[in-house]
Amino acid sequence: MADERSVEVSGLEHDPKGWRLDELALALEATILRGDGDLEILDFATLESAGSSDISFVTDRKALAQAAESRAAAFVVPEPLDVPDRPVLRVGEIWEAVCRLIEMFRPAPTMPARVDPSAQVGHSCDLGPETGLGPNAVLGANVSVGRGTRIGAASTVGDGVRIGEDCAIHAGVHILHNVTIGDRVVIHSGAVIGADGFKFERVEGRWKKIPQVGTVVIEDDVEIGANTTVDRAFLDVTRIGAGTKIDNLVQVAHNVEIGRGALLCAQVGISGSSILGDGCVLAGQAGVRDNARIGAGAQIAAQAGVKDDVPDGAQMVGTPAWPISEWSRVLVAHRKGPELTKRVRKLEKRLEKLEEGRDD
Amino acid sequence: MADERSVEVSGLEHDPKGWRLDELALALEATILRGDGDLEILDFATLESAGSSDISFVTDRKALAQAAESRAAAFVVPEPLDVPDRPVLRVGEIWEAVCRLIEMFRPAPTMPARVDPSAQVGHSCDLGPETGLGPNAVLGANVSVGRGTRIGAASTVGDGVRIGEDCAIHAGVHILHNVTIGDRVVIHSGAVIGADGFKFERVEGRWKKIPQVGTVVIEDDVEIGANTTVDRAFLDVTRIGAGTKIDNLVQVAHNVEIGRGALLCAQVGISGSSILGDGCVLAGQAGVRDNARIGAGAQIAAQAGVKDDVPDGAQMVGTPAWPISEWSRVLVAHRKGPELTKRVRKLEKRLEKLEEGRDD
Amino acid sequence: MADERSVEVSGLEHDPKGWRLDELALALEATILRGDGDLEILDFATLESAGSSDISFVTDRKALAQAAESRAAAFVVPEPLDVPDRPVLRVGEIWEAVCRLIEMFRPAPTMPARVDPSAQVGHSCDLGPETGLGPNAVLGANVSVGRGTRIGAASTVGDGVRIGEDCAIHAGVHILHNVTIGDRVVIHSGAVIGADGFKFERVEGRWKKIPQVGTVVIEDDVEIGANTTVDRAFLDVTRIGAGTKIDNLVQVAHNVEIGRGALLCAQVGISGSSILGDGCVLAGQAGVRDNARIGAGAQIAAQAGVKDDVPDGAQMVGTPAWPISEWSRVLVAHRKGPELTKRVRKLEKRLEKLEEGRDD
Repeated sequence: MADERSVEVSGLEHDPKGWRLDELALALEATILRGDGDLEILDFATLESAGSSDISFVTDRKALAQAAESRAAAFVVPEPLDVPDRPVLRVGEIWEAVCRLIEMFRPAPTMPARVDPSAQVGHSCDLGPETGLGPNAVLGANVSVGRGTRIGAASTVGDGVRIGEDCAIHAGVHILHNVTIGDRVVIHSGAVIGADGFKFERVEGRWKKIPQVGTVVIEDDVEIGANTTVDRAFLDVTRIGAGTKIDNLVQVAHNVEIGRGALLCAQVGISGSSILGDGCVLAGQAGVRDNARIGAGAQIAAQAGVKDDVPDGAQMVGTPAWPISEWSRVLVAHRKGPELTKRVRKLEKRLEKLEEGRDD
Repeated sequence: MADERSVEVSGLEHDPKGWRLDELALALEATILRGDGDLEILDFATLESAGSSDISFVTDRKALAQAAESRAAAFVVPEPLDVPDRPVLRVGEIWEAVCRLIEMFRPAPTMPARVDPSAQVGHSCDLGPETGLGPNAVLGANVSVGRGTRIGAASTVGDGVRIGEDCAIHAGVHILHNVTIGDRVVIHSGAVIGADGFKFERVEGRWKKIPQVGTVVIEDDVEIGANTTVDRAFLDVTRIGAGTKIDNLVQVAHNVEIGRGALLCAQVGISGSSILGDGCVLAGQAGVRDNARIGAGAQIAAQAGVKDDVPDGAQMVGTPAWPISEWSRVLVAHRKGPELTKRVRKLEKRLEKLEEGRDD
Repeated sequence: MADERSVEVSGLEHDPKGWRLDELALALEATILRGDGDLEILDFATLESAGSSDISFVTDRKALAQAAESRAAAFVVPEPLDVPDRPVLRVGEIWEAVCRLIEMFRPAPTMPARVDPSAQVGHSCDLGPETGLGPNAVLGANVSVGRGTRIGAASTVGDGVRIGEDCAIHAGVHILHNVTIGDRVVIHSGAVIGADGFKFERVEGRWKKIPQVGTVVIEDDVEIGANTTVDRAFLDVTRIGAGTKIDNLVQVAHNVEIGRGALLCAQVGISGSSILGDGCVLAGQAGVRDNARIGAGAQIAAQAGVKDDVPDGAQMVGTPAWPISEWSRVLVAHRKGPELTKRVRKLEKRLEKLEEGRDD
């Protein structure tokens, strides 16, 4: 399998250092449920693509059947699962184990901690230790970049921007003036942070631009996807709360406030001044009106269009969005609309007959 | 308030020069309805965030209750509003006044009028006076850039592009060959103007690319949002009419013609060869089919999908889009679908009984 | 016409070399149905914009009426069409002819086959002959670029990327580490290939990032639109099959597999691990759930939301998407919902009367 892949796909070529099963158990703080501690493991792979010298993983009961069919040499499973008759390491938290295995077998490359000679740094900038700036990266004036933060090739950072520690700002990101970014923030290529909000007012028959002189604050541990846009506020702050994760091609308009630990999937759009509660989840292509309020823990279905405020924990679907509990019954009725129309037509005829009979 | 902000948010740090209320009245051509002309105002802020030495503003009657609660030292209001018992400046046009106050207290930074040494300019380019090119900006050959236009860092401009006067092309914009851009146009980071239209024809079982050799014309006073894409025409012109404003992540396909003063909100998509009338408004995530015609002043709701031509001034909603007047009644019926189904079932039973009775 | 255009639109200025009708017939392998072989043709244009010395084209019967009205000097038509009483060239394959005419009259500019002095090339890169790198283009280490491939200004290519022959990677594209790209691939400005997939798991009350260490493979003859994003896989491969064409602002999530010859229109979103069959067509703003399977040749309507697997050749519409055959009847019933409600109310009243009568 590894050979096949190396022919075709450069991205999967790597030189996996082997680990023994007991070494893995130690690294993962795992129990060896079954299997020889000396078993040599050469790579980490999904159930589907694992070869006979790879270790794979199972996250839940549903995947056990697929595990039984997998060619993998061994499996990592969470309590209380097992893959019968196969070498198995059992761990407390499966995703911690998966991340550790990726580190051991397939470490993701990181941007180097050096300032490329072609990078440009404006006056009065403050770059912390172990900072990295890629080729042609451009920092304006008065920018501060925290320890360990890396900024990729061809990215631009405007005057007065503050970026915290251990951030990864990938290639081709544009961060405009005075934006504030916390620690451990990841921003993917093509994202634009701090462009003007979309505010035009009708004055004398034309759209007058209202200058956007607020800013954007991205709190700690936020991730922002490729080509996503987060606009600066009119006068105040557009804020992305700590630990919130945003996918690609998402629009966050001016003055939006997103709480902590929210999840916004690809192509979601949040209109101006809306407030999203902690831990809410918006599935792909969902949209939220301006000045709406989404409760904490609310879940908005893919392509839903939120028009009114959404209570905490509510599950909403459709355009305009309403509770999923009502929606599923309505959907059934909707699809039976032609049938219902026929039934009503029949009723009308039968009733007509009865009425005629009565008139007799 | 200012202190709190400066700790947390770099973007809101500024050193506001104070103005007396009578100086502001003069600058805004306002009447002092109430308040001491000597009152010192230190900043301009929204009703919500204004501190006790700030001036704030009211745009309509609905905001008056909030104004009464605001800590602001003074208010600007349009005719005929008032904020009782508080210092008030009254003006003719509130948004003109707001823009003036932003200029006075919080001027937005502008790109400098200088050509950065790292900018590259191709042969036979014509740069007007007071032109600015940011770090690593790249102009191809035969590009003309009008007086006062600024092009941001890392932007690229293809051969033969013409850009008018006083434009702001922000960092990371890509304008491809031969595109024409008018005066006072604003283009935000990541926008791509003049990429190939999406035209493939089925030839011998494969998609054959049909070269896109038309162009794009962006007329005066247009604004184009971050990461928005405007494709070049097949043979003719994709045109954005004067004064039209386009938000982030919008798709304008090849050969589209948008009239004057239209408003396209975020994530709107306009398919090939469609024609949008003057002053139409498309809310977020709305889509328009290819070869459709949207009338002047039409309003398309968020997430609506326009399939057929839309008359002037129509208000459309839903997918496929239809008039809002019909839609709201249909939505009510839609949501009562399960109830209606029950009512029909009851009718069927009652009718059955009656029919049985008659047979007796 | 040409003069009018040259005043207004730089993009349509060109110096068309004239061709005689018989020269064109030879170049297109066309039959002269009618017209003088000596007729001088100065340009190629659409029916609508053609002037009296231009040749235009007709692709199907529906366009014949417009052709009759066109000012064009001559027409190219496919078998068995004709434009009566006008000079006509008839060809076997109209789109081949159109492409040939564009080459002859309006050749699209290509990026030059030279490495700009400002381009940066990392160590151990392998650039084929006739390779072009635009100003400020950045290649990482161990990148291979095939013969004839051109990479535009300000694009960045990560370590270990392999790009085939005769590709056009336009300005401002970002290709991340280890991605593999085939031959004759076109990627438009602002596209991001190989950013991290969106995978976060809930661990101890927080979203834990699961590193994305797979890759992306773009096969031969693929085209990818401006500002489109294709994420790298978690452990395996995100794959775009040969000959597939993707429009602007499309999201392709991690581990997605798209077959050959598919067509994804603008703003489409494909969620993680979904599989799209050969030749399927997704219209604008359509969305596909994660882990879904779209059959070969399936057609998904604009704004449709695919929730379940779609069989080969199926035509789907709506959210959640279902077959167009059922959908159109349901839509009719849907829009008559208010009327049906009235009819049921009437039935209830009439039945009540009857029941009362019976009780008498």
